[in-house]
Amino acid sequence: MTARALRLGMVGGGEGAFIGAVHRMAAALDGEWRLAAGAFSTDAGRNARTGDALGLDTRRVYESFDAMIAGERALPADARIDALAIVTPNHLHAPMAIAALEAGFHVFCEKPMAMSVAEARAIADAARASGRRFALAFTYSGYPLIEEARARVARGDLGKIRLIQAEYLQGWLSEPIDNAGNKQAEWRTDPARAGLGGCLGDIGTHAFQLAEHVSGLQVESVSAELTTHVPGRRLDDDVSALLRFAGGARGLLKASQVAAGEENGLKLRIHGERGGLEWSQMEPNTLVLRWLDRPAEIVRAGGPGLQDGTAKLLRTPSGHPEGYIEAFANLYRAFAAAIHGGDEDRWFPRVTDGLRTMLFIEAVIANAESDQKWTMVDPGENE
Amino acid sequence: MTARALRLGMVGGGEGAFIGAVHRMAAALDGEWRLAAGAFSTDAGRNARTGDALGLDTRRVYESFDAMIAGERALPADARIDALAIVTPNHLHAPMAIAALEAGFHVFCEKPMAMSVAEARAIADAARASGRRFALAFTYSGYPLIEEARARVARGDLGKIRLIQAEYLQGWLSEPIDNAGNKQAEWRTDPARAGLGGCLGDIGTHAFQLAEHVSGLQVESVSAELTTHVPGRRLDDDVSALLRFAGGARGLLKASQVAAGEENGLKLRIHGERGGLEWSQMEPNTLVLRWLDRPAEIVRAGGPGLQDGTAKLLRTPSGHPEGYIEAFANLYRAFAAAIHGGDEDRWFPRVTDGLRTMLFIEAVIANAESDQKWTMVDPGENE
Amino acid sequence: MTARALRLGMVGGGEGAFIGAVHRMAAALDGEWRLAAGAFSTDAGRNARTGDALGLDTRRVYESFDAMIAGERALPADARIDALAIVTPNHLHAPMAIAALEAGFHVFCEKPMAMSVAEARAIADAARASGRRFALAFTYSGYPLIEEARARVARGDLGKIRLIQAEYLQGWLSEPIDNAGNKQAEWRTDPARAGLGGCLGDIGTHAFQLAEHVSGLQVESVSAELTTHVPGRRLDDDVSALLRFAGGARGLLKASQVAAGEENGLKLRIHGERGGLEWSQMEPNTLVLRWLDRPAEIVRAGGPGLQDGTAKLLRTPSGHPEGYIEAFANLYRAFAAAIHGGDEDRWFPRVTDGLRTMLFIEAVIANAESDQKWTMVDPGENE
Amino acid sequence: MTARALRLGMVGGGEGAFIGAVHRMAAALDGEWRLAAGAFSTDAGRNARTGDALGLDTRRVYESFDAMIAGERALPADARIDALAIVTPNHLHAPMAIAALEAGFHVFCEKPMAMSVAEARAIADAARASGRRFALAFTYSGYPLIEEARARVARGDLGKIRLIQAEYLQGWLSEPIDNAGNKQAEWRTDPARAGLGGCLGDIGTHAFQLAEHVSGLQVESVSAELTTHVPGRRLDDDVSALLRFAGGARGLLKASQVAAGEENGLKLRIHGERGGLEWSQMEPNTLVLRWLDRPAEIVRAGGPGLQDGTAKLLRTPSGHPEGYIEAFANLYRAFAAAIHGGDEDRWFPRVTDGLRTMLFIEAVIANAESDQKWTMVDPGENE
Repeated sequence: MTARALRLGMVGGGEGAFIGAVHRMAAALDGEWRLAAGAFSTDAGRNARTGDALGLDTRRVYESFDAMIAGERALPADARIDALAIVTPNHLHAPMAIAALEAGFHVFCEKPMAMSVAEARAIADAARASGRRFALAFTYSGYPLIEEARARVARGDLGKIRLIQAEYLQGWLSEPIDNAGNKQAEWRTDPARAGLGGCLGDIGTHAFQLAEHVSGLQVESVSAELTTHVPGRRLDDDVSALLRFAGGARGLLKASQVAAGEENGLKLRIHGERGGLEWSQMEPNTLVLRWLDRPAEIVRAGGPGLQDGTAKLLRTPSGHPEGYIEAFANLYRAFAAAIHGGDEDRWFPRVTDGLRTMLFIEAVIANAESDQKWTMVDPGENE
Repeated sequence: MTARALRLGMVGGGEGAFIGAVHRMAAALDGEWRLAAGAFSTDAGRNARTGDALGLDTRRVYESFDAMIAGERALPADARIDALAIVTPNHLHAPMAIAALEAGFHVFCEKPMAMSVAEARAIADAARASGRRFALAFTYSGYPLIEEARARVARGDLGKIRLIQAEYLQGWLSEPIDNAGNKQAEWRTDPARAGLGGCLGDIGTHAFQLAEHVSGLQVESVSAELTTHVPGRRLDDDVSALLRFAGGARGLLKASQVAAGEENGLKLRIHGERGGLEWSQMEPNTLVLRWLDRPAEIVRAGGPGLQDGTAKLLRTPSGHPEGYIEAFANLYRAFAAAIHGGDEDRWFPRVTDGLRTMLFIEAVIANAESDQKWTMVDPGENE
Repeated sequence: MTARALRLGMVGGGEGAFIGAVHRMAAALDGEWRLAAGAFSTDAGRNARTGDALGLDTRRVYESFDAMIAGERALPADARIDALAIVTPNHLHAPMAIAALEAGFHVFCEKPMAMSVAEARAIADAARASGRRFALAFTYSGYPLIEEARARVARGDLGKIRLIQAEYLQGWLSEPIDNAGNKQAEWRTDPARAGLGGCLGDIGTHAFQLAEHVSGLQVESVSAELTTHVPGRRLDDDVSALLRFAGGARGLLKASQVAAGEENGLKLRIHGERGGLEWSQMEPNTLVLRWLDRPAEIVRAGGPGLQDGTAKLLRTPSGHPEGYIEAFANLYRAFAAAIHGGDEDRWFPRVTDGLRTMLFIEAVIANAESDQKWTMVDPGENE
Repeated sequence: MTARALRLGMVGGGEGAFIGAVHRMAAALDGEWRLAAGAFSTDAGRNARTGDALGLDTRRVYESFDAMIAGERALPADARIDALAIVTPNHLHAPMAIAALEAGFHVFCEKPMAMSVAEARAIADAARASGRRFALAFTYSGYPLIEEARARVARGDLGKIRLIQAEYLQGWLSEPIDNAGNKQAEWRTDPARAGLGGCLGDIGTHAFQLAEHVSGLQVESVSAELTTHVPGRRLDDDVSALLRFAGGARGLLKASQVAAGEENGLKLRIHGERGGLEWSQMEPNTLVLRWLDRPAEIVRAGGPGLQDGTAKLLRTPSGHPEGYIEAFANLYRAFAAAIHGGDEDRWFPRVTDGLRTMLFIEAVIANAESDQKWTMVDPGENE
């Protein structure tokens, strides 16, 4: 509790960007992080305005990522940033993460981790070599009831798992806004900046990560279809996949950014021999458990029946809803704890989680381009 | 309105059977049908008790299907049954339907229509040759808000359709009750009586039929996996399929009878360029419409905003829930109207709907047994 | 089971009326009743058309209530009606019920029972003297999960009851349609035909009856406000009441017919020392139980955990929704069973239930017109 | 945006206290406040540990409220706190608020504002005399969709308002934990520290404030019942009230802390001539609008159709849930804006809002102790 607040630097996240602001609120919420430096935009004016609005010392509002790394390294150890948040488009994740790790900074990186499995492995190598922490923003795994679900499956409440259904439906790319000046849409649909997968990389990876994280099972093979519904779009905007999990469980993954009218519909359902669970991100404080032999239960954040690990992720009593920013803040807290060297129990998504998503992306793309039904997903076990 | 009540015969549906009783309630509800004859069970005592409980003239409680057909044909035209409800296990559907049609009776048959495409085509031939009506118990398509959904899609409210997701989750076969004396489970998992598909034929067909009926689009090809999770079971208890629809829409079909804790979770979601719809059988009086550019709407049975065709399917004002039996009764009403030769507008599932499901079953099974990704579904257009 | 179908006569319920048709469907559903006679309308043409549409023998479509009573009494005992359904405006309930009982017919009467406590007592006397059965259409108490709720409270699951909240919100009288040709609205807002209470008598009584029936507790005193929001309306269209129950439980009753946009929102919530329950008529197959010390449970019609008495009220397996007509049919089944002299366990609303609602109506009206805070509700114990 | 972060002091909120931590997170979230001083507990060890955990300069962790006021006044203007958060039991609100205002500090005070109307008026006087800002933690009015609801009512979407129903159900005081060492329960049920109302003051005031704030209407008179269900408890734990609003709207207020199994069920429903709205705190990102003549709409935080003022209160895109802390943070942002002298449009609860709740509390208590039906609520207009 009395550990000092850590100093955070940020690359990307200039005014108008969505996810940078969320990182800052999540880091600020519990008082364990303090924003200390930034290179928010390659547009000098925008960069300066962002730094000013955030109340940063102007000397620590850097004109570039490289300048920030150099500048911070030049500061005394008790002044320089502890960790760097990378909230840029995807193609910059790997080079920046590697440089930051090598310069001795911990890294909290946006997902997807990298543009390729090879890049992901290079980050893994850099993290290992540097001894620094690498966290990935699989935000949804920071929700308390996701931990509750994971713990319930792990201790066998549902019995052997048979079915895993993960879906993530958005509608905001239903129209060709990627060519109409929407900055968020623009880079996400540009293969050079987003990577091989469009919807697949942007949100399919969240659904995949949640499915593996909560079930504790790895996808062994996949049969998939990637579709681009909006004419002129250069990447997929819609993903469907059949999944075969280790141990025999069968899964479905559905992700779409052209499900017109949907908001941010990430939903996970898992069924085992004795019961099933259902969790929906848009009502994240409820976990429904269904049973073969007794009435379904509504497990609630802060309510009776929670596992110990869940309670540690909560800030308010039952009935006082916590949301997306709080889930994100749980990752920042766990990341801080790991840096302080304490409480290693607090889970956050790490290199191995990121690598799995990259292996999955590559397997899906390979399968979607082939006529064969199933493509193996490399377990990535030795990383 | 003043048309006389039609006389219904029934084969199958002895005491203890579920679906026979539902047919009888559905037929009785609106006073347009009267149960007049039956061959309810091959167990003579059970047959007699059922007939007695139903208040039937003992002379019209027949010892066998053949006896019923012969006995009814021998009655004067103004006394004999008008139509036969076939509520037996699947392997008897085709031979009985064909015999009844050839004997001049209309037929209301349980689904799946038959054991094979060939049998389904034979029924189609018999119906054509006899000039008699053939209805199939795709009950869920009798819900008023399914008609609302269909009409909305047809008039283009959602724009061009892109995504179609149909799912049907049950949990009642999670344990090996098929070998433990559960009569319902026993025949449904016996290939000789259920047919080639287990879960696929029993409930996958409902999901498929609803998807095509509401979207107005045909599935062109399918990539599927059939799984048997419960050891010793002889048919699939779990189905996953990727669907490609005519016109480019992409679909998912998920059906399972081992989703422990689920009841009767049939759900349909369709998204087009401008919006999406969602309907769930367990709350059938609500249809949610979501839009790109305005708040989602909750369309309610009996409430404002319904299409004319929907209102005709309702019996109570808004807020007075109608359910499964009423949906079923809507099919019996439409079937009666067709027999009377009036109101041809009232929709009910017919030979072509049944044939499509058989073509789908065969394509899924062929695909699931192969290594190829996609299998075409015969359009069955010329039937 | 083998008991003969009973013969039902009906007064009121001509074409276009809502509740008469519901009575007919409810009676028909289980094959235990057969409509045999009727005096549907004082408009001769409407009366004849209704009888014809229902397939009745024209000799048993009577021009008046008196003619029906006389005509049916003149038939042999094995042909005449067993019971009479009274579905007229309220002012006719008592005189017709008394006449029918005295003529030897059982009576199934719409609610509210009568225009006054005095009338209700006269019906009670007639029922007692005749030895005939008298049932009241408190339809909502026929829902299976209302029985589940009642049984749970009775066996003490919730502990001593502290709070009872009953509400019934409709919006259909938000505009002055009573003066614009809406027949349903017209008589319901006419004191001469509806009685002293408008909204109070029409739907407030349902909420009151459900509260007492499920809690097993009587209201001892009431503090109420009756409001008429729509200018020109002659009866209340909105009711609010504080309730004091025997034993110390405190309650609220809210009923309104000017809650614009609401459909048929009857909802009951009861809390005791250890937990609470919630039931909503618009999703009648779900009963939520909340507990102090464990997660809330979703008890479902047909699902695990039901009491024996609930299961007897169900016609379909879990997940196949039953609705308003089935709830109504449960009352007709119980009424039939009582007439046959069998299964007295099946509950239906009787004279005492009706009398309680009349005592409540009079207490509410007395209180609403006074400046005193509380008015006692006569327990009606000796009836 | 570039305004400096304001410095916050806090009295109360030592380790283990709930609401103090929420104030700190809410203030931190947007980077507009920095915790600079505190007197967290009269227990010296607890006080010191809290200050240490929060990373405060030990010189600004004061042993008492008086010491903090004196100590901060002695600091230079650009170092001392700008505002004081008062998160103590209720009996300390008024003396501390008045002292802080008189010492030149702005005040953000927990509710209820004070122990009496007289105290509330004294605070009002002190605020007026000092020219300092006074904010009250009616947190729920900080939810974005509460603003949406308010704006919709204000511009007449629902037409003239007829019904207002506010309820707040909790279950955490179902057992006599106030005498069993639960600190939160202990002071809340002690008249000397909580004030005249128990449940009434603690949560009934929230329901009342929301009802008046969203409807824009004042309660003119009240008829109420206060009940203490748990034996030995010294204050009410259950409130029911009939409300008469200016202009003829009728209302119900229900608040309970013995609704066993309920969490934090604050819910508001308002109906007017043309439609109604419903909002529930436990799913705060949804506002349901129902209409007489078209389907109900689901207005969502971040979704289409929001008023401009609502959008300003949101931090994330639609489907990324915001919760209780974010609602609270909206009040701190608005309070900061008012102090900076800018954006006066941002609403937060002020002296007049607090005074209204005190006037309501006194009217309810007066009525509950009398036999008269209605008690006027002083409009407090001239404050």
